[in-house]
Amino acid sequence: MKLATLDNGRPDGQLVVLSADARLCAPHPAWPTLQQALEAWTEAEPALRALAAQLSTTGTAPSAQAFDAARALAPLPRAWQWLDGSAFQSHGDLMSTVFHMDKLPYDERPLMYQGLSDRFLSGTADVPLPSEADGIDFEGEFGVITDAVPMGCTREQAAGHIRLLVLINDWSLRRIAPVEMKTGFGWVQAKPACSVAPIAVTPDELGEAWRDSRFQMHLQVDWNGQRFGLAHAGAMAFGFDQLVAHAAYSRDLVPGTVIGSGTVSNETYREVGSSCIAERRAIEMLDEGAARTPYMAFGDTVRMQAKFEDGRDGPFGVVDQQVVKG
Amino acid sequence: MKLATLDNGRPDGQLVVLSADARLCAPHPAWPTLQQALEAWTEAEPALRALAAQLSTTGTAPSAQAFDAARALAPLPRAWQWLDGSAFQSHGDLMSTVFHMDKLPYDERPLMYQGLSDRFLSGTADVPLPSEADGIDFEGEFGVITDAVPMGCTREQAAGHIRLLVLINDWSLRRIAPVEMKTGFGWVQAKPACSVAPIAVTPDELGEAWRDSRFQMHLQVDWNGQRFGLAHAGAMAFGFDQLVAHAAYSRDLVPGTVIGSGTVSNETYREVGSSCIAERRAIEMLDEGAARTPYMAFGDTVRMQAKFEDGRDGPFGVVDQQVVKG
Repeated sequence: MKLATLDNGRPDGQLVVLSADARLCAPHPAWPTLQQALEAWTEAEPALRALAAQLSTTGTAPSAQAFDAARALAPLPRAWQWLDGSAFQSHGDLMSTVFHMDKLPYDERPLMYQGLSDRFLSGTADVPLPSEADGIDFEGEFGVITDAVPMGCTREQAAGHIRLLVLINDWSLRRIAPVEMKTGFGWVQAKPACSVAPIAVTPDELGEAWRDSRFQMHLQVDWNGQRFGLAHAGAMAFGFDQLVAHAAYSRDLVPGTVIGSGTVSNETYREVGSSCIAERRAIEMLDEGAARTPYMAFGDTVRMQAKFEDGRDGPFGVVDQQVVKG
Repeated sequence: MKLATLDNGRPDGQLVVLSADARLCAPHPAWPTLQQALEAWTEAEPALRALAAQLSTTGTAPSAQAFDAARALAPLPRAWQWLDGSAFQSHGDLMSTVFHMDKLPYDERPLMYQGLSDRFLSGTADVPLPSEADGIDFEGEFGVITDAVPMGCTREQAAGHIRLLVLINDWSLRRIAPVEMKTGFGWVQAKPACSVAPIAVTPDELGEAWRDSRFQMHLQVDWNGQRFGLAHAGAMAFGFDQLVAHAAYSRDLVPGTVIGSGTVSNETYREVGSSCIAERRAIEMLDEGAARTPYMAFGDTVRMQAKFEDGRDGPFGVVDQQVVKG
């Protein structure tokens, strides 16, 4: 099942169910917002699936309309909680290089921070930021949205609470990041609001591409129209089941908790490229002695698109946006 | 003006205005929740103040009742954002001792992390946590609640967006804290939900005790009925105006953003005591070579009460709660 949220002038928007081909959408009268659906997912899911089936089979439903991704907000336009992992070791190792820090541990427990969740920008929104001097960077990653997860749940139980899958652009200010990181307190200024591609999908939509609680897909990233990366997201050191269980150790997770993978990255980064600029700069530091690729300038664009292993487009729609002076 | 939120079975509760003596309370029909009031504070504040004046002068108002702190939730039972500083250098220096880490910088920019804000526990709620072995600790601190703060605002502008003042118990799991801190990602597992004393007040309620964007008050902390600390909160290295402006560097702050001071602490900690157990353990490490005070056991209680400099009780009501097996 594919879900999106249309802009209706309200902070949580209007939840719509999409047809299988994502050309049509329709609201469900009982579930006006995705947050409300997630708060009662066992009731909401069958009702939403029935509407999706009707829309896909008959091509119509009450208030059905063509789905226009340009009118979509983030699937969950705001959430009570955003916990972002850093589950790709090749990314972590490169970031330690670019930030001149010791390598982070990847053998015992996931890395995770709590980030800004009072808004998620749409995949096409302009992104207002204060200064090019801060080292503006995109970060392509995948994420999951849970329903209510009890404190202390196991990894296996956690897997069952992963209800929706999303594609995220986690904006970062790289010149502030190491300053905040060295305090041990994590990031505040270095992590403004994330953007999210327009369509959230249930795990079954990915078929075999959702396996081991990981997205077995490539993430295609273009910067100013030039291919920048095509890394595979299956390389996570910890699966999303482990990330959810880690997050729930000492807290219940509220419905609509969003948990991210961290920047998609492969050890073969010299061949497949990267999902953020900082990684390329780290590779340049390793290979050429100094970073030469600049961070983003105002007006720069970034485009992200998930790709199945056979090259078909993933179901999330695209992130395609520019950064502007805020 | 004094505000509180009563439990009405809904997540945001029922906002009530208190009489000046905090004996009576009444709802305002136009402002059912504190979040809604904060989203339109310039409209809401005069209406709520008019009700408070009526209640204080006449002793009655529609739906007025005796204010029962035991029925109160946290003033803001959930918020879109909780950003906690660590603005007391004597606390930071002692924590570096207890965590065996280098001292943190206090000379340039505030320390701040983003924490769990999907719920704030009431000041009297039992606090369920997974294990005594995690090093369960209270942390007494003060906090402010803002209305909408634009990105990039100055310290002076930020001061004007501080709308309400609160007393917070920021629960911490001390054996996890340094593990998470050493990654640079900040705390997730080490920082479960905070508790908040029942009454939020506008800054004018403190009179001269709100000065330099700091609480010029003592925080009295008792652990299992024994006095533990009576530190003065005026010793912040950065005022709340600076904390708010720091938080708003690369993000707008949504109405209802809660910003904390970090544990109240004084350099005279050997005389005035501490607002958390970890500090006392650090002092023992410095003075006696090893920590001997244990962290909390299930069933332990902590009580926190703000005190004016002349010894009068502060207006926030009390935190008085026990920690239980979750």
